[in-house]
Parts: sequence; C-alpha cells; structure tokens
Amino acid sequence: MGPLALSLGDPAGVGPELIAAAWALREEAELFPFFVAGGPELLVDSSRSRGIALPVTQIFHPAEAFDCFGHSLPVLAGADGEYTPGTPSREGAELALASLEEAARLVVEGEASAIVTGPIAKARLAEVGFDHPGQTEFVAAASGVAAQDAVMMLAGPNLRTVPLTVHIALADVHAHLTTELIVRRARITAAALERDFGIERPRIAIAALNPHAGEEGRMGGEEAAIIAPAIAQLRAEGIDATGPHPADALFAPRARAGYDVALCMYHDQALIPLKALDFDSGVNVTLGLPIIRTSPDHGTAFAIAGQNKADPGAMIAAIRMAGECAERRFGE
Amino acid sequence: MGPLALSLGDPAGVGPELIAAAWALREEAELFPFFVAGGPELLVDSSRSRGIALPVTQIFHPAEAFDCFGHSLPVLAGADGEYTPGTPSREGAELALASLEEAARLVVEGEASAIVTGPIAKARLAEVGFDHPGQTEFVAAASGVAAQDAVMMLAGPNLRTVPLTVHIALADVHAHLTTELIVRRARITAAALERDFGIERPRIAIAALNPHAGEEGRMGGEEAAIIAPAIAQLRAEGIDATGPHPADALFAPRARAGYDVALCMYHDQALIPLKALDFDSGVNVTLGLPIIRTSPDHGTAFAIAGQNKADPGAMIAAIRMAGECAERRFGE
Repeated sequence: MGPLALSLGDPAGVGPELIAAAWALREEAELFPFFVAGGPELLVDSSRSRGIALPVTQIFHPAEAFDCFGHSLPVLAGADGEYTPGTPSREGAELALASLEEAARLVVEGEASAIVTGPIAKARLAEVGFDHPGQTEFVAAASGVAAQDAVMMLAGPNLRTVPLTVHIALADVHAHLTTELIVRRARITAAALERDFGIERPRIAIAALNPHAGEEGRMGGEEAAIIAPAIAQLRAEGIDATGPHPADALFAPRARAGYDVALCMYHDQALIPLKALDFDSGVNVTLGLPIIRTSPDHGTAFAIAGQNKADPGAMIAAIRMAGECAERRFGE
Repeated sequence: MGPLALSLGDPAGVGPELIAAAWALREEAELFPFFVAGGPELLVDSSRSRGIALPVTQIFHPAEAFDCFGHSLPVLAGADGEYTPGTPSREGAELALASLEEAARLVVEGEASAIVTGPIAKARLAEVGFDHPGQTEFVAAASGVAAQDAVMMLAGPNLRTVPLTVHIALADVHAHLTTELIVRRARITAAALERDFGIERPRIAIAALNPHAGEEGRMGGEEAAIIAPAIAQLRAEGIDATGPHPADALFAPRARAGYDVALCMYHDQALIPLKALDFDSGVNVTLGLPIIRTSPDHGTAFAIAGQNKADPGAMIAAIRMAGECAERRFGE
C-alpha cells in the first residue's frame, strides 16, 4: 500500500501550518507515512509560525515518502507559492486546487492509499474554476461516484454522525427527506463502517426529525411516513438500524454507547453534538467511494492563520483515521 | 424564608424514590431544607427500593421542616397512596395533582420559598382534570403569570439553554418565530439570571435557525428578517445579546465560555447539547414568575421505577438550584 496523500488546502488558511504540526507529532500520534502534494517552500514558511524547524524532502513519486518520512516531510515536487497567512488570493486558490487535484489523482491511480484534504475556501476555489459544492463532491467525481452516493460522516472520539441533508434552510429539511434517501445512505454507511472501520454489523441509530420523535404524530408526521419505513426496510435487509430516536436523548452518554453511528436528518442535528463533544478532533470522512478520504472538520480559519493558535487535533485525527482505514482496506 | 416545597410527581414513577435519595444525600449535596407535599407512607415504601431506611416526620406547617430536616424527611400530612412503581393509576395521578397543587399554593402564599416539582405523566394528569400542557404552564397560572411569559430554561453544570419553541413539528418552527417573541423571552431571561442566579449583566447568545446562520440568506432568511432585529433591539435596551450564532459551533467548549445562556430556536437545538453534556444533572427552571420553580429535567421513567436504577443527580441539582435561587432572592 502507498503512503497517504495530503492536499495543502488554501495556503492562506491554517492547512499548511497544521500539516507541519502533524508531521512534527508523527511519532506520538502514530501516524502512517504521508506526503503533501506541492508547496515545499510554503510549508517551511508556515512551520516557522509554529516554532517548528521543518525539514522537507522533495520527492518525485509517492513511494519515496516511506524513505524520508521519519526524518523529513516528503513533498511532491510541483506547484508552490508565497506564504501570506490570513490573506487569501487567486494564486493561493490555484495552488490549493492544483494540490487537491494532484493528491486525488494519485489516490485514484493507486499510488497513494488515501487522501486527507486540507481546508479550502469554496467561494475562492469557485473563482478559479472549481465547479463542485465542496471537496466531498469533488472526490466523488474524481473517483467516479455520483455525488448523492458520497456520504459525509463526521467522526470524533465520542461520536460518529451522518447528516442526511446539509446546506438547506431548516424549514426545507422535511421536504428533502425520503425513505429512499435514508435507506440508500444507511446502506452505504453500514458497508463502509464494516469495511474501513472494522465494525462487524454496525449499529445504526436513526434520529427522529421532530421533538419527542413526533409523539405519535402530534408534532409532525415524518417519523411514521418516512423514517419508520426506511428502518423497516433496512432491518429486512439485515442491517442493524434502530429508531426513529428522539434526537434530544440520542447523544447522551448512555445512549451513545448503544450505536456506532447516528444518522441525522439535518446539518445542526449532526453537528451540534459532534462539536459539543469533540470540537478539536472531529474528522470529516467520505463514505461510499472506491478511495478513502478524510479531512479535518474545520475551515480555513483565515482569522487565526499564521499565529500558532489553530489546534492540530483535527488534522492529526484525520491523518490517523485515513491511515487506519487504509491499513484495514489494503494492509495484510 | 421558608423551606423548599417538593411535589411527589407521579407516584408510579421515579419521583418519590429520587426525593428519598436526595434527602439521604442532603449533607454532601448541601441541600437547603425541604419538605414534601403529601405521601408519607409512599415515600417510605419507595425508599426501600433504594436500600435507604427513610425516617419521615409528618408536619402540619412548612416552617416545621427546619426542625426535623437534619434527621428525618419532613412530609406535610395529607394525601397518601399505595406504592406501585411502574404501574401508573388514576389514584396515583390524583395524588400527584394534589401534591403539586398543595406545594404550589404554599409557595405562592409565601410559606415555602420555592417549589421543586417531581416528574408527572401529562396524559395521566389530564385524565384527572389537569388542563395545562405541562407543569410550567401550571405554575405560571398558579402564580398569576400568562403562560407565554413563563420561560423554560434548562440548566446543567456546563450549559444553560432556553428553547423559544418547544412541542411543535420542526417544519413549523420558522412560522412560530417572531422578533417580539425573542425580545420578550430574552428580557425575562436576562432579568431572571440577574435576580436569581446572581449574574450581573448576563451574556445572552442567540442561536441561528439555519445551518451556518443562513450564510447571508443562501440557506434561509430568518436570521436577517427575525433574529437580527431582535438582537439589535435588545442591545439598544442595554441587554448583552449576541448572534445570530451558527448553532453547530455554539456549544463547543470555547464558545460556551463566552455566554451565560443560549437562546435556542427549537426544542432539539436546546436539548441536544444539554443532554449530550449534562444528561444526569439537567434542571428545568421556570423564569419570569413571582415564585421560584425548578424540576429535574427527566420524566417519570416508569420503566425503571422501583429498581434502584434512576440517577438522583438531576433531582439533587434541582433542589440545590431552588435553594440557591431562594437564598439570593430572600436570604439576607
């Protein structure tokens, strides 16, 4: 199996410095060897803001990463740019896109075993020709999967959640939910937890949409009309799905012990508990792809870039998880 | 100031045993003296399920509670019933209602300094003539306040939240939100935190409704149309209100340090983080009343009543908070 491929993210954000910080902690964190797609000078410059003296080795093929990873950060020779933390630019967006495309290509071609994407600014990338809503859809397209079958899972030490709808108004959520959507995403989630996370017959808790799970229809009917039929179908297929669970109690400590992943009906239902419990260590994983992809669950954080303030916990967790998934999938 | 008045809650639920458990821990938990409105035999019977030998003293006036509280649980002479945990009955509902009415009356008349209500089954109480949606509305009516001005706050060691809408379908939430509602509830919340919780100029974080606070209208317009004008008005009145804050990040540890209470747009937005963080110690407090009222933030839990399984943390926290609020309001 190949090393992990990291994309830089927007070079004006916290991506580069957190990659440097993660490399510096590679031994304590037991990280599988990785390389970065481009940006050798920029990575060295960014590391200074964190008080790290970052040795970099330019490599020309992913496999070379194994030779130097122990003493030096392997960086694929290629695009580079000036380090101007907090000041995003068109050149920076172009570099971020080039790095993302190169890392994805190497994973799709099997030269690298997983991709860990650094945080980008979607609006900036769109200006230089990136025509996907986000990196999840990009990696889906790059690996030949329809965007609706790329399932976003958020994972922390205490909780895994899958939001079934994401960037839509709360009032529109109910209109986007269908039995088919729930069944399809739950199947992908179950298969991925089994294959890449080593969980035999994963327990999937499916959240209700309405308070108290609608209390038998007195506060909304989606539980009976949409969610319960999905659960029945999943169970008939042998998938350990339960619910619809009242969402308020679903993330309490005892409840969390009863499932491996919670399928959530909307963005904040999935993100509120995850960020409340696992703020600095949340990983965004894309399930359902032929490739493995993780990402730290935070943005570019332009406002604190270059100030040694950003916590590397989520970046480290994303690299670590990518390595663990790759070893399960490709290791012997 | 008088002692605290506790209502039994449904006698088939966990209320009585948790009252017994709380009394047994009165010294470690530093609880202000309290008495129970009715149920002397029932309380003794319920205490056996927890391995407690509960001494009970029947009293005829609240003030007598101070004399015996140190060595015996004071119980107002009056209604009593058979202890049949897990099996709710009409007689039990009648006892629960009588206890609630008596405790509320004594607080309204100033004989007791606060009421702590035990958990009831609303549907059961409705069958014996209780015509309020819940105990919050009952205590509001009993103390002469319109139900819409009784503000429910959920408080744990890590977080306080106020849900602005509660038992309605998620799809209907946006239609119930108005600038006036937010302003009115925020004013009541600010005044109560100052008076009863000793927080000078409370910091009120107001949550957004939509993901990413609507991202400038791309995912819902309620932030600009309804929430932001409320915040502007509150700030003009000198209330330290901020927002609308994206709800997913609002409950992360660092964000929580920045406010005293979060005003939430819907039930699960307020309850998910509270139960995720403070499951066994959440207190339901009613703000905006001339009386002080708290309650453990859990239900009757009929399924585990009488089995020594229910955690007394929330009951103890509710009694403790009632005592602290009463001492701030009435103590010298």
